[in-house]
Amino acid sequence: MDTHIKTGGQPVKPYESNRARMLISCPDGPGIVAAVSRFLHEHGANIVQSDQYTMDPEGGMFFMRVEFDLDGLDGRIAALRSDFEAIASQFRMQWNIYQLSRKKKLAIFVSKEDHCLVELLWQWQAGDLDAEISMVVSNHPDMKEYVESFGIPYHHIPVTPETKREAEQKQLEIVGGNVDLIVLARYMQIVSPALIEPYRNRLINIHHSFLPAFVGGKPYAQAYDRGVKIIGATAHYVTEELDGGPIIEQDVQRVSHRDDVNELKRIGRTIERVVLARAVKWHIEDRILVHQNKTVVFN
Amino acid sequence: MDTHIKTGGQPVKPYESNRARMLISCPDGPGIVAAVSRFLHEHGANIVQSDQYTMDPEGGMFFMRVEFDLDGLDGRIAALRSDFEAIASQFRMQWNIYQLSRKKKLAIFVSKEDHCLVELLWQWQAGDLDAEISMVVSNHPDMKEYVESFGIPYHHIPVTPETKREAEQKQLEIVGGNVDLIVLARYMQIVSPALIEPYRNRLINIHHSFLPAFVGGKPYAQAYDRGVKIIGATAHYVTEELDGGPIIEQDVQRVSHRDDVNELKRIGRTIERVVLARAVKWHIEDRILVHQNKTVVFN
Amino acid sequence: MDTHIKTGGQPVKPYESNRARMLISCPDGPGIVAAVSRFLHEHGANIVQSDQYTMDPEGGMFFMRVEFDLDGLDGRIAALRSDFEAIASQFRMQWNIYQLSRKKKLAIFVSKEDHCLVELLWQWQAGDLDAEISMVVSNHPDMKEYVESFGIPYHHIPVTPETKREAEQKQLEIVGGNVDLIVLARYMQIVSPALIEPYRNRLINIHHSFLPAFVGGKPYAQAYDRGVKIIGATAHYVTEELDGGPIIEQDVQRVSHRDDVNELKRIGRTIERVVLARAVKWHIEDRILVHQNKTVVFN
Amino acid sequence: MDTHIKTGGQPVKPYESNRARMLISCPDGPGIVAAVSRFLHEHGANIVQSDQYTMDPEGGMFFMRVEFDLDGLDGRIAALRSDFEAIASQFRMQWNIYQLSRKKKLAIFVSKEDHCLVELLWQWQAGDLDAEISMVVSNHPDMKEYVESFGIPYHHIPVTPETKREAEQKQLEIVGGNVDLIVLARYMQIVSPALIEPYRNRLINIHHSFLPAFVGGKPYAQAYDRGVKIIGATAHYVTEELDGGPIIEQDVQRVSHRDDVNELKRIGRTIERVVLARAVKWHIEDRILVHQNKTVVFN
Repeated sequence: MDTHIKTGGQPVKPYESNRARMLISCPDGPGIVAAVSRFLHEHGANIVQSDQYTMDPEGGMFFMRVEFDLDGLDGRIAALRSDFEAIASQFRMQWNIYQLSRKKKLAIFVSKEDHCLVELLWQWQAGDLDAEISMVVSNHPDMKEYVESFGIPYHHIPVTPETKREAEQKQLEIVGGNVDLIVLARYMQIVSPALIEPYRNRLINIHHSFLPAFVGGKPYAQAYDRGVKIIGATAHYVTEELDGGPIIEQDVQRVSHRDDVNELKRIGRTIERVVLARAVKWHIEDRILVHQNKTVVFN
Repeated sequence: MDTHIKTGGQPVKPYESNRARMLISCPDGPGIVAAVSRFLHEHGANIVQSDQYTMDPEGGMFFMRVEFDLDGLDGRIAALRSDFEAIASQFRMQWNIYQLSRKKKLAIFVSKEDHCLVELLWQWQAGDLDAEISMVVSNHPDMKEYVESFGIPYHHIPVTPETKREAEQKQLEIVGGNVDLIVLARYMQIVSPALIEPYRNRLINIHHSFLPAFVGGKPYAQAYDRGVKIIGATAHYVTEELDGGPIIEQDVQRVSHRDDVNELKRIGRTIERVVLARAVKWHIEDRILVHQNKTVVFN
Repeated sequence: MDTHIKTGGQPVKPYESNRARMLISCPDGPGIVAAVSRFLHEHGANIVQSDQYTMDPEGGMFFMRVEFDLDGLDGRIAALRSDFEAIASQFRMQWNIYQLSRKKKLAIFVSKEDHCLVELLWQWQAGDLDAEISMVVSNHPDMKEYVESFGIPYHHIPVTPETKREAEQKQLEIVGGNVDLIVLARYMQIVSPALIEPYRNRLINIHHSFLPAFVGGKPYAQAYDRGVKIIGATAHYVTEELDGGPIIEQDVQRVSHRDDVNELKRIGRTIERVVLARAVKWHIEDRILVHQNKTVVFN
Repeated sequence: MDTHIKTGGQPVKPYESNRARMLISCPDGPGIVAAVSRFLHEHGANIVQSDQYTMDPEGGMFFMRVEFDLDGLDGRIAALRSDFEAIASQFRMQWNIYQLSRKKKLAIFVSKEDHCLVELLWQWQAGDLDAEISMVVSNHPDMKEYVESFGIPYHHIPVTPETKREAEQKQLEIVGGNVDLIVLARYMQIVSPALIEPYRNRLINIHHSFLPAFVGGKPYAQAYDRGVKIIGATAHYVTEELDGGPIIEQDVQRVSHRDDVNELKRIGRTIERVVLARAVKWHIEDRILVHQNKTVVFN
């Protein structure tokens, strides 16, 4: 692909082949950190980075992210996982281990507004999003050539009130079990519960307001009408409740009475781009744990 | 008063005695700026600062703030006002002239939380709020000695469900026509429409959230429950609609999952203090024009 | 050009054909605003937006930006300019009138790092930079195909210590008198005084630090070594003094001990992009006046 | 003391009597986290919060902060410390354990500008600074009554070129070994190396600029002359190099050409207050580790 500057989707770096990240959520109690770190030490792993957080010292939830190196990880990961079961069950943990050599696969959904997609592709190309972009899905054909020029497949699936169910079925088939994360990069259709359920906490949306202010449509017009002095954007995991899922990241910028709705949109586009890219990056780097309707972000 | 550091309520500075500010709102049309500036020039005034804003070039509203010097202002202000009537009526203006030598008189309402009051008094003492503080009104007696140590009268007017009407009557009598601006510095009672009406656009409240998110009570608890990543505060003019009046200023700060409700409150106190003080300062300096439910702030 | 989403370089909008902006700098004195606004009114112009600023009321400098509509502007602009000479000379004004229908012509200089160029092209494409991009000039060939895919000429002028003078000569010839603004979008060569002089206050550079901290090379490494908690970027007009010209815009972002030099660079790239794009936009919209080594930005 | 609102210096809360924090710096290597957490677990301690950071996975420095609960801490802390020696020596650790029940003792140095002192006292009074304020030391008598009204001793030690050495001697005697942290809250004298040495990494200064921009005197005048668009403040540990010590915290605020030096100072005062208070709070909460000339802040 000639017209673009760098090739995204970098190869696995040497140090990555032996590195993994472990995410743990469980009820708090004594000895968790000791048990996990002793387990890793005894299995020959070296902890590179470790973060913990206890929601409430008296009987709350405990969250942990450990990044570690282990020589010959590929050959030993299965045993590591199976050995860990004893600790996990003792502390009633929800847990996962992610190898850095297994790049996450992304599907990006987009409608007509392209700024969030362009930003993700630009960051991916610059090597800042360490993932594979498996496909772009859109209800419009507009971005086809642009996306394909990156060597990324583009699926145009039109959505009309009549074809909505059929379109959703098609989307499900395409993303199937093949992607790890779906990113709604200003995808202006409400996604089907059939997509939300299998991608719970793996389906990120960018909402163009500082949630929970201005839920629903036309948030910049709402913001203008209310006369706010700061506007924002919110990246969140999608749940069945519209704009109600766990918030991952938000950012804002100051505006003034001089900014009309179009100017708010223009300013907002940069906030949206930055906020969504951060949320996607943190998800890719396994920095986010979800508990009930809130996120713990270790960054 | 000995225990405090500086004396607030500075005397009129020499340049202030001949300086005034004019605020104008009117339907937009050709020749307004020319008419106003020619009028001032012909009356011997020198424009020091001038700001205009047109909400929509095609048939919208026009807003103007002019700061000017005029020798012998005190003796000529009456004539200036009466001469301006012709222009004002030609362009259907709402307008006002404020002399800098006439310091605005403030009444500050407060309940138990003292941080906003303390900030206003500290800024006033430091010479940053160029006004008189005529009184502090509270439904609690706690701050009496502290406030009186500044030489400011403190009116303790208890409010209970039974005495609410009577208390409001008392408040009205005390502030009467004697103050120019009422500041609700974390006054935790809903103020009476009888107070709102005469002090329309002269009654500022600080709401401890980024409005319109978290209208109503316990906004920090609401923010914690929603898991927002940024919290804020909003200063607005009070209208009959709860937390719905014209927004003057907002500011925010980043928070994380580590911050519980108490930490949000602690962080929020500093935002509230700063936002309220800015809004009060801008009102005192005649920088705010209100149109429908929005503000134009020339700063 | 097919692979891109929208066509940049929008046509002149209807309202723009009769709109102009006037920038004025002069010693302060009575009657300036009145004279200018009366002049415009008497010539049939309608002031859409007007900003003034006096650096020091007693004998300082006065700055003014007026945006106005005048029917049949194209046919009347010459007379307007010549009529204004009397006022300009009376008040010793430096002044200019810019018609919105005359889009400014930009030359963008870039080296290997592409993020600032990509941002400018993206904003231009999205219609947010209301200018023509006449050419991109680079000391590297890397971006040639990308830039040309937008229909923009790309001039590859290699620079080595031996060919520096010759290369500068070539640059001068190419930009000649043909462009209105040169943007150094991470152009990593020191530009020749022969280019600075004719483009004084029309040559914008983005410096990748919060100036005046970290003047010169490798500012992110400098910032890392100093252990700062906030990094920034600075857009400024280029003068003969390295990184010493009038600052147009700056912005910052919080960092922590966790961010190594590469992470600072990554975070910095987004700040640089946004800051440079804002500065270019403000220049294009005639919002910037320069006095000595400082800018007045009416935004 | 009657005129103030709340009593600062809160008593030890129940949960604090059994809680401690451990700070560790050492060369990185395998097994550190495991060794520390196993040690604590085996001694019956429960880890409440734990943070680690490795400056460079390959042979860099390792930093750790652990907050833990241990029943009967007071009676067991001596044994805990002595038992830990084996681990500490194995990993060549620099380390410390701080009991929350031992409130840190502060000395605040101040000159004429009172805003930072007032903020610290206000936050202390509000219960946000969990420490004892043992004394205020000043080269001016102005704040004596104000400080004493909080029940805090005030030492007026005048400093003139002639008496400088003698004054420093007096300061040393007064703070002696009796305080844990010295805060220079806009103390406008250069402090003696004799004070710096014993209080290395326990002596915090607030510098009224965004360091390393505007080192030395009159930073707001320097900032005004340079025409920066953002100003800031920096809290840092004091070293022998003027304004060159490890940076703890910085913050900034946007300014414009309209802000003269006095306005920059006014805006700056609020930044200074907030930044210094944060740095002091983090030091009190044992969140800061210093390595060479940089800080690791776990917050």
